[in-house]
Amino acid sequence: MEQPTTESINKNTITMDEMSTMEIVETMIQEDHIIHSVLKQNKQQLSEAIDLITSQWQKGGRVIVAGGAGTSGRIGVLDAVELGPTFSVPSDRWIALLAGGAEATWKPMEQYEDSEEAIMDELDKLKLQDIDTVIAMTASGSTPYAIAALQYAKKVHAKRISISCNSKTLASEFSHIAIELVVGAEVIRGSTRLKAGTVQKIALNILSTATMIRLGKVYQNEMIEMQLINKKLVNRAVNTLMQLADISMNEAQSLMRQTNNNLKEALFMALTHASLAETRNTLEVHQGHLKKAIHTYLSK
Amino acid sequence: MEQPTTESINKNTITMDEMSTMEIVETMIQEDHIIHSVLKQNKQQLSEAIDLITSQWQKGGRVIVAGGAGTSGRIGVLDAVELGPTFSVPSDRWIALLAGGAEATWKPMEQYEDSEEAIMDELDKLKLQDIDTVIAMTASGSTPYAIAALQYAKKVHAKRISISCNSKTLASEFSHIAIELVVGAEVIRGSTRLKAGTVQKIALNILSTATMIRLGKVYQNEMIEMQLINKKLVNRAVNTLMQLADISMNEAQSLMRQTNNNLKEALFMALTHASLAETRNTLEVHQGHLKKAIHTYLSK
Repeated sequence: MEQPTTESINKNTITMDEMSTMEIVETMIQEDHIIHSVLKQNKQQLSEAIDLITSQWQKGGRVIVAGGAGTSGRIGVLDAVELGPTFSVPSDRWIALLAGGAEATWKPMEQYEDSEEAIMDELDKLKLQDIDTVIAMTASGSTPYAIAALQYAKKVHAKRISISCNSKTLASEFSHIAIELVVGAEVIRGSTRLKAGTVQKIALNILSTATMIRLGKVYQNEMIEMQLINKKLVNRAVNTLMQLADISMNEAQSLMRQTNNNLKEALFMALTHASLAETRNTLEVHQGHLKKAIHTYLSK
Repeated sequence: MEQPTTESINKNTITMDEMSTMEIVETMIQEDHIIHSVLKQNKQQLSEAIDLITSQWQKGGRVIVAGGAGTSGRIGVLDAVELGPTFSVPSDRWIALLAGGAEATWKPMEQYEDSEEAIMDELDKLKLQDIDTVIAMTASGSTPYAIAALQYAKKVHAKRISISCNSKTLASEFSHIAIELVVGAEVIRGSTRLKAGTVQKIALNILSTATMIRLGKVYQNEMIEMQLINKKLVNRAVNTLMQLADISMNEAQSLMRQTNNNLKEALFMALTHASLAETRNTLEVHQGHLKKAIHTYLSK
């Protein structure tokens, strides 16, 4: 059997153990350069994946990111954990699962990589259904934990996306959309925490960020649904509001008070002069998409 | 006061909320392109940092990676946690600390970002000393948790490296080596989990991987100090040994048995025909650096 790319020997780095420190640094930077073109080659798949996630989300579905116990799984967590503070996504709506459980994010637990039962239990508990989307993260494309997640999703007719770093993977076979980020042999054979990890991080960042934009959680290029958990963040929101609506600090603070520190509603009111009731109603009709709501309201 | 780059508005993405999905994907991929050249600009600092860490390590020192509660801190964990399984680095030798503790790797705990006392307690407990190296991870360059780690390190004369994404940062001021990865404004203002997170991940991967190479934990471009925690990994080590030393499976299995599954020792024996005692002795003299040990032994 042919060796998958992620496990193959990199011909540029066979003498790596005899290189000077500077040569090692230069080689590693050079080897990462392929990431950019590999992402470009996958822009169609990335784009389709975002539209699929967004449409499932709008039906009320959740996103479940399932990775192995290694870097792939941890990158799923790294991405998901920021969606709460920055976009107010509830933690039971975009969920990262990894082999070995939460503890595996900070402890090596590679021995759980093959635990197909664990993921099926998790998906049972979550009552996975057809409006949900599963994103399988697996550099090799064959990690049993991630594959089992896709198989379970198939059974309940959930939508399936996979991110892997080899071509024609098992994960791709089980997916509606197969994102294959073939970045080639690592500088150290099989060390998929490097290029493969980086390209998976970027791909997942693109999926989650673009979905949040599509869902209207961004106005121009500002986050307008951050959790304002402390005074620093409330002040930052006031500044953003002043700048985006071109109003005074007094006006901005008053709007933030009226909306109970809801920047999106405050911005709608500032830009349309609508009442709070009208604001909430129009935003609801547009499923929270601020710019669409403003356009509709102002063209009435 | 001028706004730091990481918080500034990206002029290319002001209409991001009105772009098509494909345009968002293309824009995000394009914006990431700068990462490559920013790393190149920092190759001197990266190279010096690796030599500093290696020389401290050879004195018996530890590496402490200290990040805030956000992405910077989690990337420190993502990098450190793989050094055990892939290079047999003990978990008390390369340590990642983040504001909010281990739980913050999978839970948003940004409220702990300012906890300067927490990091000082942690460093107290570790009895930080002059042979240790602190790597502060802070996208802004001013996260109180990371700055406090550097200040503490300065007090006990430990070596100090910082990785930040702005220029002339506070973190740089307190560091022997300041790595400033100025990747520019994020596609969504202030969302440093994106470009800033990615470039920090790559930089830290380079520091840890190159240090492991310098310490002789890599032969050619193969990991030769993996933890062989299961049969699959032992079989993989046997294959690596057969290939690197050009020997039969029987010979390889016999050498793995003789060395109690120590691939590095087995490889030394296969390539030099030394006894186990000579092997261990020569490797110890060269602080575990396989290729140097082989050269010395064969030129005797």
